[in-house]
Amino acid sequence: MSDEISSQRVAVDWPLDSVVTGLRQARHDWRERQGRELELGSRELPAHHAIHAIVDTLCGILFPMRLGPSELNKESENYYVGYQLGQALTHLHEQVRLELLYRGTLASPAEVDARAKVLVSQFASSLPELRRRLDRDVLAAYRGDPAATCVDEVLICYPGVLAMIHHRIAHEFYRAGLFLIARIVAEKAHSVTGIDIHPGASIGNEFFIDHGTGVVIGETAVIGDRVRLYQAVTLGAVRFNEDESGSLKKGEPRHPIVEDDVVIYAGATVLGRITIGSGSTIGGNVWLTRSVPADSQITQASAHQSTGDCA
Amino acid sequence: MSDEISSQRVAVDWPLDSVVTGLRQARHDWRERQGRELELGSRELPAHHAIHAIVDTLCGILFPMRLGPSELNKESENYYVGYQLGQALTHLHEQVRLELLYRGTLASPAEVDARAKVLVSQFASSLPELRRRLDRDVLAAYRGDPAATCVDEVLICYPGVLAMIHHRIAHEFYRAGLFLIARIVAEKAHSVTGIDIHPGASIGNEFFIDHGTGVVIGETAVIGDRVRLYQAVTLGAVRFNEDESGSLKKGEPRHPIVEDDVVIYAGATVLGRITIGSGSTIGGNVWLTRSVPADSQITQASAHQSTGDCA
Amino acid sequence: MSDEISSQRVAVDWPLDSVVTGLRQARHDWRERQGRELELGSRELPAHHAIHAIVDTLCGILFPMRLGPSELNKESENYYVGYQLGQALTHLHEQVRLELLYRGTLASPAEVDARAKVLVSQFASSLPELRRRLDRDVLAAYRGDPAATCVDEVLICYPGVLAMIHHRIAHEFYRAGLFLIARIVAEKAHSVTGIDIHPGASIGNEFFIDHGTGVVIGETAVIGDRVRLYQAVTLGAVRFNEDESGSLKKGEPRHPIVEDDVVIYAGATVLGRITIGSGSTIGGNVWLTRSVPADSQITQASAHQSTGDCA
Repeated sequence: MSDEISSQRVAVDWPLDSVVTGLRQARHDWRERQGRELELGSRELPAHHAIHAIVDTLCGILFPMRLGPSELNKESENYYVGYQLGQALTHLHEQVRLELLYRGTLASPAEVDARAKVLVSQFASSLPELRRRLDRDVLAAYRGDPAATCVDEVLICYPGVLAMIHHRIAHEFYRAGLFLIARIVAEKAHSVTGIDIHPGASIGNEFFIDHGTGVVIGETAVIGDRVRLYQAVTLGAVRFNEDESGSLKKGEPRHPIVEDDVVIYAGATVLGRITIGSGSTIGGNVWLTRSVPADSQITQASAHQSTGDCA
Repeated sequence: MSDEISSQRVAVDWPLDSVVTGLRQARHDWRERQGRELELGSRELPAHHAIHAIVDTLCGILFPMRLGPSELNKESENYYVGYQLGQALTHLHEQVRLELLYRGTLASPAEVDARAKVLVSQFASSLPELRRRLDRDVLAAYRGDPAATCVDEVLICYPGVLAMIHHRIAHEFYRAGLFLIARIVAEKAHSVTGIDIHPGASIGNEFFIDHGTGVVIGETAVIGDRVRLYQAVTLGAVRFNEDESGSLKKGEPRHPIVEDDVVIYAGATVLGRITIGSGSTIGGNVWLTRSVPADSQITQASAHQSTGDCA
Repeated sequence: MSDEISSQRVAVDWPLDSVVTGLRQARHDWRERQGRELELGSRELPAHHAIHAIVDTLCGILFPMRLGPSELNKESENYYVGYQLGQALTHLHEQVRLELLYRGTLASPAEVDARAKVLVSQFASSLPELRRRLDRDVLAAYRGDPAATCVDEVLICYPGVLAMIHHRIAHEFYRAGLFLIARIVAEKAHSVTGIDIHPGASIGNEFFIDHGTGVVIGETAVIGDRVRLYQAVTLGAVRFNEDESGSLKKGEPRHPIVEDDVVIYAGATVLGRITIGSGSTIGGNVWLTRSVPADSQITQASAHQSTGDCA
């Protein structure tokens, strides 16, 4: 094989055989070990590219005149939405089938197909309400940023809005137990926006993240209505301890509860299963690991307000 | 329609009609409400993909041998630049037209066309000076980073340089009142580099951002010459208060003025319409909300220099 | 030329000639100045797009069933790996040739070809061991994150794993003196993940970065085994001083040494050629510029633990 390939460009004989053999052995060793330790199901997985394409199509379905194709006009909107929706659901059904097969909890292919159909239909039915919730997020962003010149600027330009479109979709998949698909959707948004929202996070209405790069919101976070976050805010877990086997425990509530009407400024770090009472303001760069009551105004301790002086 | 689509892959009847109807109603409600509250102009907008393609072409026009096509040679440079420039300006004219129509401040299509032509011609005329300014940014990056091995590495690899190419282009559009196009250009850079520079920010010569992820520079920031920033620096606004109607006020000077020869290290947060005097150094993670005179050396208060000790 | 182009869409005469002339003059001035100051070699460079494609192919070669094409099955794995490897090495050889020509240290094209062949063959031979090291990184990520549901989720979704695949490839190029190619690979990962690891950094086994946005690891950092980092951690240099000519000195050891079994939480900034002793834990947002012994527990000074209170 090496001769045939190399003759296409330059006459180089690469050491293909030994590398291919070495890689095969490495895969074999991994699978042997993985099979023993980790109890995998099927080896087929939902595919990145397929899910990315489905999500891009869903954006156009939800906001056809803004995130759909530029040649679309109002008269053809419904035809576009209906056609694309049918396509997207069919492609999604295939990916859901792959995730269910991978999880290996259903007995027969027929069961998998039937369950996938139910999950995809439920997802489709959630779309109109999802659009209404996103509209409220868009308005919250427009009202929350003095630099926004119009709602359309917010919808087509703001990374925080793009992250929320992805999160509200990912969260539906997460609730359906489709954790891999949900995570792929979330990481697509993370890569494009720098905003890392675990699909498990529960987020209320009129939510706005400004700038957004470096925001991390953990799996079990619960966020109320009309909450506003700025860049590099972490709603994370405190985990210095491991269990007796040396592993970290999985799945427990470990991220903050943020009640209604809270604002958290840039770089604040809020950790653990604590509660930020409604109406509170958390200042920039604050480090917070205990609950605070409603209407708290938390700022940096004064020692941190830099007072170094002139040379 | 559902039958036709589903027969192509699996025989699934999706609940298309109810979802399409639900989405149509959601769009209708949004437009009713939006029309009342927000007074929109035209419903056509500048298109992401078109503007992204124009900016990529402009990068090749500005730096043909480095950011243009790899097969280009020095002899064909001018032909490449001339041809691509004509293409890019024609495509840009169409997008500018869309933004002017959207803003709805000009009376007739002929006025829009004529105004778009003037704005695009002005933009084109600014390109040679823009290239000279970017050359000075590239040199500043090369000189400012001990890890840089050559200027070409800086030009083709450094996210801070890519962000500045986009910002200097976006700022021209912003000055022309093309806020949507400007913002789309800025967010393209933000997505790729993690550096979020509002197109309104005014930035002097020989500017360098190293690493860059998490940098935020606000709309009304004013930055002098030979300034250097590191990752996660914020030049932001202080806004805890809203006006009597509950909205944040838009458009006022609210971000810092950074004078010549200032260095701001990673994670520093500089907020409000304050002035950092020329020649100052702001240390990492400093939180600064008051003006400092020329040649200040601001560092963290010592209490923040971690002194926790061994177990 | 302008007539021909503009007639294709709208009848606009752009001021092409003056802009093209202005851009040519700007390029000429840059090259004159650059030639004097910076002593460049060849004007051809390794190409972004080519290297990005090579790296994507390498990901599929290393993990064919997870990062390769979705239609791949276990039976065809070796054929896929062998064919793609031959292709990738041939393309890589061309890029290595360009970098060697650019550096200009070899006398003849034949020497360049021969040296490129040696470097590419060495790189190929490193791939099986590289895969084994990446498997250990994947397992470390799975064990280190309570939100991970399976190792495959980690491999296909976690930005920290994607960054390490790129870094371990980039580091091989860096060790071979192919600094431009190495940096292009590293910046590809930085753009997608927000994790900025200089290809020169030396990183041990079972390394895991969670979330990752804003992480910066400098060129001369040395990291041991079983180290875990969170988002926005900086392992950077302290550089307030310049040499007598006003330039920053290049190439010296200036980043931290992190020994085995260290955990560094989100937002911590560790600067300078200091040593973090094995088994230490560095808390979130800590600012550290001095060495700490083994098993240290470093946390924020208490003054920084926000104690502002209710309104």
